[in-house]
Amino acid sequence: MGSLNDIGVAAGINILSAVGFLLVFAVVRIQPINDRVYFPKWYLKGTRSSPRHIGNVLSKFVNADVSTYLRFLNWMPAALKMPEPELIEHAGLDSAVYVRIYLLGLKIFVPITVLAFAVLVPVNWTSATLGDDEEGLSYDQIDKLSISNLGQGSKRFWVHIGMAYVFTFWTFYVLYHEYKVITTMRLHFLANQNRRPDQFTVLVRNIPADPDETVGEHVEHFFAVNHREHYLSHQVVYNANTLASLVEKKKGLQNWLVYYENQHAKNPEKELIIKTGLWGLWGEKVDALQHYKTTIEELCKQEDEERQKVISDPKAIMPAAFVSFNSQWGAAVCAQTQQTSNPTVWLTEWAPEPRDVYWPNLAIPFVELSIRRLIMAVALFFLTFFFMVPIALVQSVANLDDIERVLPFLKPIIERNGPRSVIQGFLPGIALKIFLIFLPTILMAMSKIEGHVSLSGLERRTASKYFLFIFVNVFLGSVVAGTAFQQLNSFIHQSTNKIPETIGESIPMKATFFITYIMVDGWAGIAAEVLRLKPLIMFHIKNTFLVRTEQDREQAMDPGSLEFGSTEPRIQLYFLLGLVYAVVTPIILPFIIVFFGLAYLVFRHQIINVYNQQYESGAQFWPDVHGRIVTALVISQILLIGLLSTQEAEQSTVALLPLPILTIWFHYVCKGRFEPAYIKFPLQEAMVKDTLQRANDPTLNLREYLKGAYVHPVFRSGDMYELLAMDEEENPHLVATKRRSRMTTPVDSKFNSSSGTNEGEFSQLRPS
Amino acid sequence: MGSLNDIGVAAGINILSAVGFLLVFAVVRIQPINDRVYFPKWYLKGTRSSPRHIGNVLSKFVNADVSTYLRFLNWMPAALKMPEPELIEHAGLDSAVYVRIYLLGLKIFVPITVLAFAVLVPVNWTSATLGDDEEGLSYDQIDKLSISNLGQGSKRFWVHIGMAYVFTFWTFYVLYHEYKVITTMRLHFLANQNRRPDQFTVLVRNIPADPDETVGEHVEHFFAVNHREHYLSHQVVYNANTLASLVEKKKGLQNWLVYYENQHAKNPEKELIIKTGLWGLWGEKVDALQHYKTTIEELCKQEDEERQKVISDPKAIMPAAFVSFNSQWGAAVCAQTQQTSNPTVWLTEWAPEPRDVYWPNLAIPFVELSIRRLIMAVALFFLTFFFMVPIALVQSVANLDDIERVLPFLKPIIERNGPRSVIQGFLPGIALKIFLIFLPTILMAMSKIEGHVSLSGLERRTASKYFLFIFVNVFLGSVVAGTAFQQLNSFIHQSTNKIPETIGESIPMKATFFITYIMVDGWAGIAAEVLRLKPLIMFHIKNTFLVRTEQDREQAMDPGSLEFGSTEPRIQLYFLLGLVYAVVTPIILPFIIVFFGLAYLVFRHQIINVYNQQYESGAQFWPDVHGRIVTALVISQILLIGLLSTQEAEQSTVALLPLPILTIWFHYVCKGRFEPAYIKFPLQEAMVKDTLQRANDPTLNLREYLKGAYVHPVFRSGDMYELLAMDEEENPHLVATKRRSRMTTPVDSKFNSSSGTNEGEFSQLRPS
Repeated sequence: MGSLNDIGVAAGINILSAVGFLLVFAVVRIQPINDRVYFPKWYLKGTRSSPRHIGNVLSKFVNADVSTYLRFLNWMPAALKMPEPELIEHAGLDSAVYVRIYLLGLKIFVPITVLAFAVLVPVNWTSATLGDDEEGLSYDQIDKLSISNLGQGSKRFWVHIGMAYVFTFWTFYVLYHEYKVITTMRLHFLANQNRRPDQFTVLVRNIPADPDETVGEHVEHFFAVNHREHYLSHQVVYNANTLASLVEKKKGLQNWLVYYENQHAKNPEKELIIKTGLWGLWGEKVDALQHYKTTIEELCKQEDEERQKVISDPKAIMPAAFVSFNSQWGAAVCAQTQQTSNPTVWLTEWAPEPRDVYWPNLAIPFVELSIRRLIMAVALFFLTFFFMVPIALVQSVANLDDIERVLPFLKPIIERNGPRSVIQGFLPGIALKIFLIFLPTILMAMSKIEGHVSLSGLERRTASKYFLFIFVNVFLGSVVAGTAFQQLNSFIHQSTNKIPETIGESIPMKATFFITYIMVDGWAGIAAEVLRLKPLIMFHIKNTFLVRTEQDREQAMDPGSLEFGSTEPRIQLYFLLGLVYAVVTPIILPFIIVFFGLAYLVFRHQIINVYNQQYESGAQFWPDVHGRIVTALVISQILLIGLLSTQEAEQSTVALLPLPILTIWFHYVCKGRFEPAYIKFPLQEAMVKDTLQRANDPTLNLREYLKGAYVHPVFRSGDMYELLAMDEEENPHLVATKRRSRMTTPVDSKFNSSSGTNEGEFSQLRPS
Repeated sequence: MGSLNDIGVAAGINILSAVGFLLVFAVVRIQPINDRVYFPKWYLKGTRSSPRHIGNVLSKFVNADVSTYLRFLNWMPAALKMPEPELIEHAGLDSAVYVRIYLLGLKIFVPITVLAFAVLVPVNWTSATLGDDEEGLSYDQIDKLSISNLGQGSKRFWVHIGMAYVFTFWTFYVLYHEYKVITTMRLHFLANQNRRPDQFTVLVRNIPADPDETVGEHVEHFFAVNHREHYLSHQVVYNANTLASLVEKKKGLQNWLVYYENQHAKNPEKELIIKTGLWGLWGEKVDALQHYKTTIEELCKQEDEERQKVISDPKAIMPAAFVSFNSQWGAAVCAQTQQTSNPTVWLTEWAPEPRDVYWPNLAIPFVELSIRRLIMAVALFFLTFFFMVPIALVQSVANLDDIERVLPFLKPIIERNGPRSVIQGFLPGIALKIFLIFLPTILMAMSKIEGHVSLSGLERRTASKYFLFIFVNVFLGSVVAGTAFQQLNSFIHQSTNKIPETIGESIPMKATFFITYIMVDGWAGIAAEVLRLKPLIMFHIKNTFLVRTEQDREQAMDPGSLEFGSTEPRIQLYFLLGLVYAVVTPIILPFIIVFFGLAYLVFRHQIINVYNQQYESGAQFWPDVHGRIVTALVISQILLIGLLSTQEAEQSTVALLPLPILTIWFHYVCKGRFEPAYIKFPLQEAMVKDTLQRANDPTLNLREYLKGAYVHPVFRSGDMYELLAMDEEENPHLVATKRRSRMTTPVDSKFNSSSGTNEGEFSQLRPS
């Protein structure tokens, strides 16, 4: 365990680096040249135009106004200034609720910290058993403030038990209150929103094959019969995955073409030669411009062919459809009910937002889904517990002596002392580092294989998987040293009541480590987040080589999004640490509070100025967030029981037993009370909205409004659009859509603004 | 472990007692005097009249026809003769599906037995390691046929592993097929049934209080708005629990009155004096006839007052209502959807059959429900693991020496040797025995506290609890000797992988015990079931003292019912034993097959001739039955892994690991595929039924038909009926109902015939 001095030094370093990041950020963000990196959200909303149009050449790139440097920290109050309703309007409910997770952290931990420092710290400090410790273990000042200072069988443990109850009930109260507030926000958001196509639409999957009818006819007949008074129209789903990949490929080539055209424009004399083989290293030499032009032309032809094939081939129609109803009541009924006696066909659920649909997964049959989930569950188990095995293999292969043997010509380089030690110290870590960087991507791929149909659902599943990984490999891995597999092995061979004891016992000893972790990952990490180093560099590279017009520059912006799947589980680690250490070593709490405070500030700034969500799920992730905090609470209670049972405080263990039971019960109460609001849509609300809308807009042609809302994004260009739109009878004057970024793939849809402008988007589809 | 001889002797005794029971049954059942005990079902259906009306006096009581004695076993083929569709028509789907559980046992275990005897028994027999066992353990012939004969690390374990897979997949196949068949039967049953009130009715609970409206008005307005085109009428629920208890009390007193009237009629001179105090032992002496007449009169007055109070007092109206719709489609939609944004109010679910409603639980608020469930979960845990504690206390209090000390005047009796040893041997067991007899009642009371609203739901929950109890205390308690609490304690202090090893290791050694158990509990128990000793005695007592008219005699019959809550978990024990021992000691399998065969025969006979179900849930219990067999399968696999890992067969343990994972996955597949059919009602089916019914009976006044269907049973007498019926506008000519037994309490409704005659029952409510 570290002394207070060590922690002070670590804190100093990390505070310095965090302040450093913040200072650099304060300077670079006010440079006009970086404006699109730090304020992309406003560009996308169309309320900010490039500051480079005015002034002289220098002021286009560098901010020479000294007064702005003096106010360099004014982004902080600005981030807090925007009131919540405006924030929801501006950034969407998902983002507004996401930053409330940090606020929730403050709400839970600030009172707990105050109480812990008022009660537990004095109690711990005054029981000076560690001073005359006989076993000679290296205890240090930090321990004087922790539960370890009490000594075996002390009566003072009852204070800690009492505080465990107080902390638990306080957490219950805050969690319950927050769940209630967010549920109200969600319902209010859904009720106040403008008309959206997904409010009238249900996604139907596993439509059974019919020998006499096409999928479209079958859907129409089925719903016209079974939802006689409510069925309006439907949109079949095409398997356009090949087409989407062609479009994607073309886009990549077009970027290269633009690059070479720019090169050519700068230096018309120079001949631009590239090689056609792998990565431009091998193969025939050709003229770059000519090569890309012909390739793109070919791809265009292929794309047209594929497009025709998809539309004309009945096999390209997947057994899924988006079915629309003439009222929200009708859609709510269809989404919540079972359609036929076989519950594996005609599966209905609320359609995700059009932007939120993950198209490739729409056609997976029921049995395959359950097999995929089984395989992914097994894979997740192995990934979590055995991920070290392949990495260790890679590391052993990458051993320098082996490399020397295989590639003897490298021997002179390797044998030199300098590089050798660097590489030897560097290689073992690199494989692990690469794995950890790619982990969220791997987990996301696994979620995709599981077959969820919406991007929001994929993110939520990824977050669950990532949390498991972090809990096992970061939390348990740090507390009980050794790889996850070793832990698993020792846990299996240990008696059931020994496991919490083993973990609980080492908890106080790891406090210093976690304090350092919080400072490095939490403080400095969050400060680095606001700097956006990677998008900053990428933007300037693109700006230099690809950008010719304002449009290009808009495409070069990468506003990014919250990445719920990879960021939320990391927040949960702080909740876990806070709850586990609240009773044991309260000294850790202030560090966590600083993290939550700083992160709240930074992320509120980011969602206002930077991030642009790809979709709006209406805070559907809250039950997951809530559930994981409750899980952390149960874990903290079990570990406390384990810790106390090693301290010869038998009764105390019994006195704590009701806590996990109460917590699990609390979870079920909250689940029953609030969760349905995130899954179902109440009929009363639907009826109110229907009545209001009919009164407000009695002449609305809903069929026209919904037409084309759920067409696969690759078909969203003028001509294809009409061919595929839901209803062939009418032929409305479609306004040519300007949404370039939406024409291609769903990934690109992040360039659209969030829900606030939905109405605008779809109004283009209505007759002009 | 027992030798083959011991088992032979035990088998002989049990076969003899079983055959004895069957012989006695064969003789007593053909005596006319017992006709109502062994054929009550037919009396209730009205197709059988007392055989005592014809012939001379003797032949009214004793069967003198010798030929019938010769055909004394003809009930067996007769029980099998009735085809299944007729059985469903005759006894209801619940009963027909219930006997299929025994059939399922045969389907699973007959092929497994054949295979086990063809493959495993020879393999075990020929590995003669136990002959020259060095450790001197007392192995016996049975072990030569079991897996214990193989010896440590034998290669032959692979045969067992292979068979474990074969058995598992065979069980999957049979279970899946059976689930499919029963789901089809259920849907077919629901579709083919005559019109029933519950098909149009939804139970709404937790209606929020409204300051301006009564519950009735509130319900009417809410559903008239939110289910505009489908709402028909509603029936509020009165808190008539006090009234019901008054009615019940009156009925008991009336029985006594009838008894004394009969006594008086036989012997008019004798004065009938009773004491009014406790149990007729203390208090004032009064004339019996006069006393009961006045008491009953008083009760009648009280009842009338209470009735008026319930109807006029708005506080007696509970926040629950039965809401009826004008189509099954409308009801299906309402039952499956969420009504308002607060999911704890306006809770809708399918209304149970009117006979199936458990009235006292209709008014429990949501929060109270979850608290009740928490308390009951904790109580169940303590009941299961610590039930021995109070019994041990009672036993120690009932210690003879203590009794001697407290009541010294008993000393001379106790001190005699004869009584002393009898009592000493008898007392410790008696408390346990009493507890076990009352256990299903205790569990049912716990389920009632949990707040389920239908009798069928109560039975299902009780069955789950009972299965847990049997598994822990009968199965584990027999395998690992010691009380459940001791086991729990040792399991907690044991390493996780040791638990299946400990249990698995003792599995082969307990085979003889379980074979004896199967013969006593299974063979002889089932044979005793068919004799119906308790109802036989009770009927003759009632017949002697209470019966004056044919009507009384009908009331004296106690057809009983299947008692799903207490009988099904016992069947599950046999599934568990069969699956656990199939690979380990296949010699147990034939005994289980005999049990399933005999039980199938007996219960098929009972549901045809005797039992009269109180309600018809449409086989809603099948997901529970299926789930418990799958649980047994997982348990058997884990125990096999545990057993093999003690046999130095390391690889084999790994080879078996996929089995439990596959089984759990299989469970989820089945759940997804079939379970919705037991919870929801598909809209397509509802639409088909609506269309058919409209075509068949276009003039039906559904409002009239549903009127009064869900009136509390205590109100079901002519005058009250009209006061409370759903709709006050019309005043139909109600045929005075003849259903005396239905007028009182739901318990009495068992005297009605099952679903087959529903139409008849409710047709009385339609305008004549």
